[in-house]
Amino acid sequence: MAYRYNRLDKDNAVVLLVDHQAGLLSLVRDFTPDEFKNNVLALADIAKFFNLPTILTTSFENGPNGPIVPELKALFPDAPYIPRPGQINAWDNADFVDAVKATGRKQLIIAGVVTDVCVAFPTLSALEEGFDVFVVTDASGTFNPVVRDAALDRMSQAGAQLMNWFSVGCELHRDWRNDIEGFGGILGGHLPAYANLIQSYSQKS
Amino acid sequence: MAYRYNRLDKDNAVVLLVDHQAGLLSLVRDFTPDEFKNNVLALADIAKFFNLPTILTTSFENGPNGPIVPELKALFPDAPYIPRPGQINAWDNADFVDAVKATGRKQLIIAGVVTDVCVAFPTLSALEEGFDVFVVTDASGTFNPVVRDAALDRMSQAGAQLMNWFSVGCELHRDWRNDIEGFGGILGGHLPAYANLIQSYSQKS
Amino acid sequence: MAYRYNRLDKDNAVVLLVDHQAGLLSLVRDFTPDEFKNNVLALADIAKFFNLPTILTTSFENGPNGPIVPELKALFPDAPYIPRPGQINAWDNADFVDAVKATGRKQLIIAGVVTDVCVAFPTLSALEEGFDVFVVTDASGTFNPVVRDAALDRMSQAGAQLMNWFSVGCELHRDWRNDIEGFGGILGGHLPAYANLIQSYSQKS
Amino acid sequence: MAYRYNRLDKDNAVVLLVDHQAGLLSLVRDFTPDEFKNNVLALADIAKFFNLPTILTTSFENGPNGPIVPELKALFPDAPYIPRPGQINAWDNADFVDAVKATGRKQLIIAGVVTDVCVAFPTLSALEEGFDVFVVTDASGTFNPVVRDAALDRMSQAGAQLMNWFSVGCELHRDWRNDIEGFGGILGGHLPAYANLIQSYSQKS
Amino acid sequence: MAYRYNRLDKDNAVVLLVDHQAGLLSLVRDFTPDEFKNNVLALADIAKFFNLPTILTTSFENGPNGPIVPELKALFPDAPYIPRPGQINAWDNADFVDAVKATGRKQLIIAGVVTDVCVAFPTLSALEEGFDVFVVTDASGTFNPVVRDAALDRMSQAGAQLMNWFSVGCELHRDWRNDIEGFGGILGGHLPAYANLIQSYSQKS
Amino acid sequence: MAYRYNRLDKDNAVVLLVDHQAGLLSLVRDFTPDEFKNNVLALADIAKFFNLPTILTTSFENGPNGPIVPELKALFPDAPYIPRPGQINAWDNADFVDAVKATGRKQLIIAGVVTDVCVAFPTLSALEEGFDVFVVTDASGTFNPVVRDAALDRMSQAGAQLMNWFSVGCELHRDWRNDIEGFGGILGGHLPAYANLIQSYSQKS
Amino acid sequence: MAYRYNRLDKDNAVVLLVDHQAGLLSLVRDFTPDEFKNNVLALADIAKFFNLPTILTTSFENGPNGPIVPELKALFPDAPYIPRPGQINAWDNADFVDAVKATGRKQLIIAGVVTDVCVAFPTLSALEEGFDVFVVTDASGTFNPVVRDAALDRMSQAGAQLMNWFSVGCELHRDWRNDIEGFGGILGGHLPAYANLIQSYSQKS
Amino acid sequence: MAYRYNRLDKDNAVVLLVDHQAGLLSLVRDFTPDEFKNNVLALADIAKFFNLPTILTTSFENGPNGPIVPELKALFPDAPYIPRPGQINAWDNADFVDAVKATGRKQLIIAGVVTDVCVAFPTLSALEEGFDVFVVTDASGTFNPVVRDAALDRMSQAGAQLMNWFSVGCELHRDWRNDIEGFGGILGGHLPAYANLIQSYSQKS
Repeated sequence: MAYRYNRLDKDNAVVLLVDHQAGLLSLVRDFTPDEFKNNVLALADIAKFFNLPTILTTSFENGPNGPIVPELKALFPDAPYIPRPGQINAWDNADFVDAVKATGRKQLIIAGVVTDVCVAFPTLSALEEGFDVFVVTDASGTFNPVVRDAALDRMSQAGAQLMNWFSVGCELHRDWRNDIEGFGGILGGHLPAYANLIQSYSQKS
Repeated sequence: MAYRYNRLDKDNAVVLLVDHQAGLLSLVRDFTPDEFKNNVLALADIAKFFNLPTILTTSFENGPNGPIVPELKALFPDAPYIPRPGQINAWDNADFVDAVKATGRKQLIIAGVVTDVCVAFPTLSALEEGFDVFVVTDASGTFNPVVRDAALDRMSQAGAQLMNWFSVGCELHRDWRNDIEGFGGILGGHLPAYANLIQSYSQKS
Repeated sequence: MAYRYNRLDKDNAVVLLVDHQAGLLSLVRDFTPDEFKNNVLALADIAKFFNLPTILTTSFENGPNGPIVPELKALFPDAPYIPRPGQINAWDNADFVDAVKATGRKQLIIAGVVTDVCVAFPTLSALEEGFDVFVVTDASGTFNPVVRDAALDRMSQAGAQLMNWFSVGCELHRDWRNDIEGFGGILGGHLPAYANLIQSYSQKS
Repeated sequence: MAYRYNRLDKDNAVVLLVDHQAGLLSLVRDFTPDEFKNNVLALADIAKFFNLPTILTTSFENGPNGPIVPELKALFPDAPYIPRPGQINAWDNADFVDAVKATGRKQLIIAGVVTDVCVAFPTLSALEEGFDVFVVTDASGTFNPVVRDAALDRMSQAGAQLMNWFSVGCELHRDWRNDIEGFGGILGGHLPAYANLIQSYSQKS
Repeated sequence: MAYRYNRLDKDNAVVLLVDHQAGLLSLVRDFTPDEFKNNVLALADIAKFFNLPTILTTSFENGPNGPIVPELKALFPDAPYIPRPGQINAWDNADFVDAVKATGRKQLIIAGVVTDVCVAFPTLSALEEGFDVFVVTDASGTFNPVVRDAALDRMSQAGAQLMNWFSVGCELHRDWRNDIEGFGGILGGHLPAYANLIQSYSQKS
Repeated sequence: MAYRYNRLDKDNAVVLLVDHQAGLLSLVRDFTPDEFKNNVLALADIAKFFNLPTILTTSFENGPNGPIVPELKALFPDAPYIPRPGQINAWDNADFVDAVKATGRKQLIIAGVVTDVCVAFPTLSALEEGFDVFVVTDASGTFNPVVRDAALDRMSQAGAQLMNWFSVGCELHRDWRNDIEGFGGILGGHLPAYANLIQSYSQKS
Repeated sequence: MAYRYNRLDKDNAVVLLVDHQAGLLSLVRDFTPDEFKNNVLALADIAKFFNLPTILTTSFENGPNGPIVPELKALFPDAPYIPRPGQINAWDNADFVDAVKATGRKQLIIAGVVTDVCVAFPTLSALEEGFDVFVVTDASGTFNPVVRDAALDRMSQAGAQLMNWFSVGCELHRDWRNDIEGFGGILGGHLPAYANLIQSYSQKS
Repeated sequence: MAYRYNRLDKDNAVVLLVDHQAGLLSLVRDFTPDEFKNNVLALADIAKFFNLPTILTTSFENGPNGPIVPELKALFPDAPYIPRPGQINAWDNADFVDAVKATGRKQLIIAGVVTDVCVAFPTLSALEEGFDVFVVTDASGTFNPVVRDAALDRMSQAGAQLMNWFSVGCELHRDWRNDIEGFGGILGGHLPAYANLIQSYSQKS
C-alpha cells in the first residue's frame, strides 16, 4: 500500500493548546523550565505567524492547576477559550470539539501538559474521528522521559505524527521566500544559536 | 483501516499485579527505589479507588524471590491471590487465567517485575487470546533501560498500549466531577509536586 | 597539622530546616519529587528519633513561596518556628540565631531549599561564628546539578562537612544496640530496598 | 488480523553467535566491558543449558578483528564454527546458512558485534526467508546508543522480536520446576543481585 | 505478507547530502562537534569509495546559514550542486528532484542538517513517490535527542529504514574481498578504535 | 585559622562580562542555548538592578568570534567597553584592569565564554592581585562538562568562590524588603517556575 | 610547605573490606551490579597477589544485612574476620582496631558498603589517629552519585587519597618486571578489554 | 598567604605524553574515541606550535599495550622517546626523569593513558620534586568518570593544576597578535565549531 505524505498545510491546520497552566507546569520534568517555556511560546508564535486558528482550553483553572500562562492568553485574545468544567479529555467537552470542527480544518497540531493525558487523550479521540494529528513533542511536557516515551509510542502507533515546533514551522512555511524577515524573526527569537548566526552575518553585511 | 480508540473503561478493566516481591525488587534498576515504590502503590490505589477487580500473583515466594510487598497484600485482602508453583508466565497458570476470565472483563491493566518477563509474557499470551492489554510502564521494573526498551517494543508491536499510572487513572476517571476529592487525594498522595499545588492553593482559599 | 574527626554527637547537634515550602519546592530540579520528599522526611524522622533540637524557618510563606510542607510542621509542633519577614539569609534574622544559640549546641545539621542560597548563606555565616556545620546534601535541593555543585564546593571550601541523611543518622546512632528496632524502622520507612531486606528476612525467621 | 504469540520453544530454537571477536569487542561502547562480557556469556550458558544447537561464526579472525573470545570457543567445542572468508553478512555465507538449515529449526536467537551490521544483516536476510528472529539486544553491542537504536528499529520494523538474555532464558524454561537448581545456577552466576538473594535465603534455611 | 529485505545495492543507490552548512551546523546539539564532523565525512568517503552518484544541496548559503562545509565541496567537485533559492524541503526544488531522477536509481541514502526538517521532509516526499529511503541517523543532526527521536519515528513509520554510516558502508560493500585495503582504509580513517586494531595487528605481522 | 565569610556587598562589587560574543557562543556546549542565554541575561539584569558598575570586554569582535550579544550592549550603554586588540587574558589589557580599579571595588563578579580561558585567566590574575573573585558558573560556558569541572577546580583551589546568578542576586539583595517588587520581577523574568508561582498566587489574591 | 608523595608500599599496606554483605549490596545503586562485583573481587585479588594483610568485618550478618559475599570469605580463609555486634563505625570496635594495629602497617586501603558510612566513618577515625588512608572508590558503593560525591569530598578534605582498584594495584606493583604473568593475569581477569588485548596479542605471537 | 598565579610560560614548559598506545587506548571509556583522538592530537599540535620540548614514553610497547599512536611518533621524530622496560610510573625511569631535567624547565604539561596511573603517578612524583604540574584532563583517558574524578581529585589536592588542551594553548599564546594565522589554524583544525565560524566569516570578507 503506497505511502501518502500527509503534510502540514497552513490552510488546513488548527492549533490546540491544552492545559498549559501555571500549576500544572510545575509537574513538567522532562524539559528544563527555560527550554519548555521557550518551546511553548515558539509554537504559539508560529500559530500566530501563519494565522492558524488556535484553540485554548484549560482544566479547573480556579483550583490548584492554576491559570493559563499569561503569554498564551495575551497572544490569542480572540481565540476560542474553553475552560473545561471537569472533563479530563478535552475531546469529551462538546464546546472544544465544536470549536475544532467549526474551523473546518482536518489537521490538528496539538501540544499540552501533561503529554500522557492532556495531549494523548484528545489525540486518540481525534484520530478515531478521522482527523490528522501532529503532536508537538517539545511543546508538550510530563513527569519524566519514561512516561513521555510511552505516551508518544501510544500516539504514534495510533497514527499520529510526532513533530517539534521547528519542523511544524518549516513544514507550514514551505519556502523562505514567502516571508524571509518574518520567519527569520521567529527563529531568531526562539533559537539563540540562530540569533547568533543572524547577528554575526549582519555585522559583516 | 480506521483507527479505533480502545479506551480504558472502569467497568471493563481488571488490574494484574505480577511478582512485586521483596526479593525480585532488588533486581529493578531502571527506576530508583523511591520512585518505583511510589509508582506501584499509586497504581494500587487507583485500582482500589475505581473498585477494579485486581489479581495478585507471585513466583516462588518462599524462596529467594521473597514475599509479596506487604502494602499490596494489605490493600487487596480479598483479591484473588495466586502463588504460582513454577510457571514463569503467569498466563501458563490455569488459576490465574481463570481468575482473569472470571471477571468477565476484556481490558487488562498489567504491571510487574521484571518487565521483560513477568509483564511481557502474560501480555503476549493475553493479546493472543484477544484481550486488550494496557502496560503500566512506570509500575513495571527491570534490569536497565536497554532491557526495558526492548521489552516495551516487543509488547507495543504485538498490540499492547503503553501507559503509566497517572494516565491510567485519568483515563478511568474521565471527569473530575465524578469525585474531585477522591481523585485529588490520590494525586496528592503520590505526586509530591501536585500535593504542593494543593497546599499552596488551600492556603489562599 | 593533625586532623581531628569532628563527629556528629547527638548531645551537641541541632537540626536546621530552612525554607522547605510548597512553592519553593517546585524550583527543585536536581532530585525527582519522590526522592526529595523522601529525603527531607527521612532527615526529619532522624531529628525526631534522636530528640535533636530542631528549628524551622520560612521565607515569606504568605506569598508565592507558599507554606511550609505540612509534614514538617506536624512533626515538630513545639519547635521554634521563625517565619522571616524578609531576610534571605536566615542567619541575618536575630530570632533564628537566638534560637540556635539557645540550644547551646555547636554542631549544626542543615538542609533547605534552595541549596545555593537558603543553605549556603546561613552555613557560611555560622562557620564564621565558629559553629561546625554539616550540610545534608540530599535533603537540600536547587535548580540543577551545576548550581548544586558550585554551592557545595563553596561550603566545603569554607569548612562545612558534606553529608546525607543516611550518614547523619548512622553517625548519630553509633551503635545499633542503642535501639535496633527504632533505627531499623527509620531505615525501613525511607529506604524501600532496606524494607525489602527486612521483609525477606522476617519471612524466614 | 489476530496476533499470534510467537514464543521461543527449546525444541525449535537455534542460537547464532556472530563475530564476538577480541578485536571487534573494542568497538563496543553502548555497554561497559564488564556488563557486555557478562551478557554474552549468560546467553552462551543459556544455549548450553537448553542444549540448543549453536552456531559460531567470525569475520577475518586472523586480521585485526582478532580471534573469537576463548570462553565461547571453549563452551561449544563441537558446534559448527564458520570463519567467513569475507562475507560481511553471515547469511551470504552458504556454510553458515546450511548450518542453520541443517538444524531444522525455525526460531533464530541471534547476538553479535556490531549490532547494526553483524546482527542486523543476517536478521533481515533470515526474516526474508521466513525464519522467526529473536534479537538478544544486550548480548549485541555497537558504537553508541544512537546507532543501536536505529539498528533495533530497523530489525523490529522488519518483524524481529527484541529480547534480552534473561527473557530468552525464561521464555525457553517456561516452568521453574523443569530444573530449579540448574536454572537458578545460571541466574546466580550472571546476576549478582540474584546471587545475593540466593545467598541471603540460604543463610536462613 | 512476506517481508522483503530491501538491501542497499551500490548500483542502485544515490547519496543526498542536505544542508551541511557552516552556520546550520552550530544548531546541531545531539552529537558533539567532533563526532558529527567525523560521521559526515565518513559517509562522504563511503559515497566516494563506491562511486555512488552524490547530490549536494544547500539552503540560502549566502545568508546566516553559511556555506557548505568545504570538505564536502572538495570531495565532490563534479557532483550536482543545488543551492535552493528558498524551498525548505529539497524535494520541492525541481532541480534537486531532477538530479535524483537523472541517476535512475531508486535507493536514496540521505543525511542532513537538521534531521527533523532537511532530512525528514525530502524523505517523506521521496517515499510518497516510491523511492526507498535509507536515513543515515548519525550523519544527520538536530537540536536535541527529543527532536531527533520524534523525527526518526516519523520517518520510520512512513517506511524509511534507519541506518548509520558504518552499516551503510558494510551493506554496500558486502564482501571484504571486494577491496580489503580500500574499505579498511575508510574504517581506519574514521574509527579510531579500528585504527588502533590495525596498528597493533601490523606491528606483529 | 578562623574562616571569614567574604560576602557579596552591593557597594563593593563590580561585574565583569567577558567575551559573550555571537560567534564564541556557538562553542558553548555545557548548557543548552536557551538556558545559557537566560542565565547570562539574568546576571545582567541583576547587575543593572543593583546598579553595580559593569565592565564589558570582547576579543576580536570583528573576526569570527563575532560581535557582543546585542542585549548586553543595550543594557549597559554607558559601561566601560573594552574591545581587546589581542590579549586573551583580559587582565593583560591595561584598559580593562584600569576600568576595574577605577571602580575602587574589591569584589569581582565574573562570567564569560569560555570558562576555562576567558573566565579562568582573569580570575587567577585578579586573585593574585588580592581581589575577591566570585565566579558565576551558570553564566559561563565552555566545550563540555569535563573542561568546565577542571576550570572550576583550578579557580576554586586558587581561592575564587563558585556561585550562580541566583545566589549572586540573593547575596546582594540580603532582604526582600529592600525592594520586593523589583527583585521579584527579576526572578519572575528569568525563572519560569517562579513566574508560575507568582501567577498562581496572584490569581488567588 | 613541600608536598610529599605518600605512595602505596606493599610492605606497609593493609586492606580493609567493610560490610560487603549480600543484603547491603542491594542498596548499592551508583554502580551496576556487574561492575561492582568485578571491582570488589579485583581489589580482593590484588590484596591476595601482594600478600597484603587483609581484614574483613561485617555488621549484623545474621540479620537483614545478610552474610558476607562468599567469594571474599573464600579468598581470605585465615584473615581476621570481625563480625561487629553493633558498632556502625568499624573503628569503634576494639577487635577491628587491634587487628589493624597488629599488622604494624600505616597505609590503610579501604573499601566497603555503603561509602558514606561504612567507608567514611573508619576512614575519618583512622586519619585522626595518624594512619594514611587510601579509599578505593570503585570498590565502594552507595545509594546514588550525590551521596557518593558528598562522602568522597568529606574524606578527601580530611586527607584521604581517592583511588580505584586499578591504580592501587599499579602503585603497589611499581614495575611489571616484578611479575609480568601474575599481574597481567589479574588485569586480564578483571578488565575484559585488557583480556582482549592479551588474546589478540597472543594469537599473533 | 597570598596566592600566586603559576601561569604557563612557553619558555619554561615541557610536554610529557605518557603511554598513548594503540592497545591501551581501547581501555579509555570516559571519552568517545573521536573526541579523545582529537584532544590528544590538539595537544600535540600545540606542543609543536610553541616549540615546546616534548617527551614521549611508552610501557611495554611490544606487548599487548601496543605501539605508540603513529601520529604522535610522526609529529615528534626527534623528541626523546623512552620505551620503559617495566616501570609503571614513568618517573621511576631514570632516562625519563633525566630527559625532563635536561630541558631545564619547571612547568610540566602532562597527559596520558590511563589518567589514574600513567598520569597520576608521575604527576605526584614530580610535584614532590618541586615541579609545577599542569594536567591536561581532556587528553588523558581512563576507564570511567568515577575513576577519572578520583584521580583528578588526588592530583589537585597534591597541588597540580587541572586544565584542558584549549586553555593550555591559550595560556601559552597570551596574545593573538603573536601569530593570528598560526594559532587560528590550530583551533580551526581541532574545533569543528570554530572552523565553521572561520568559514562563515571568510565567506563574507
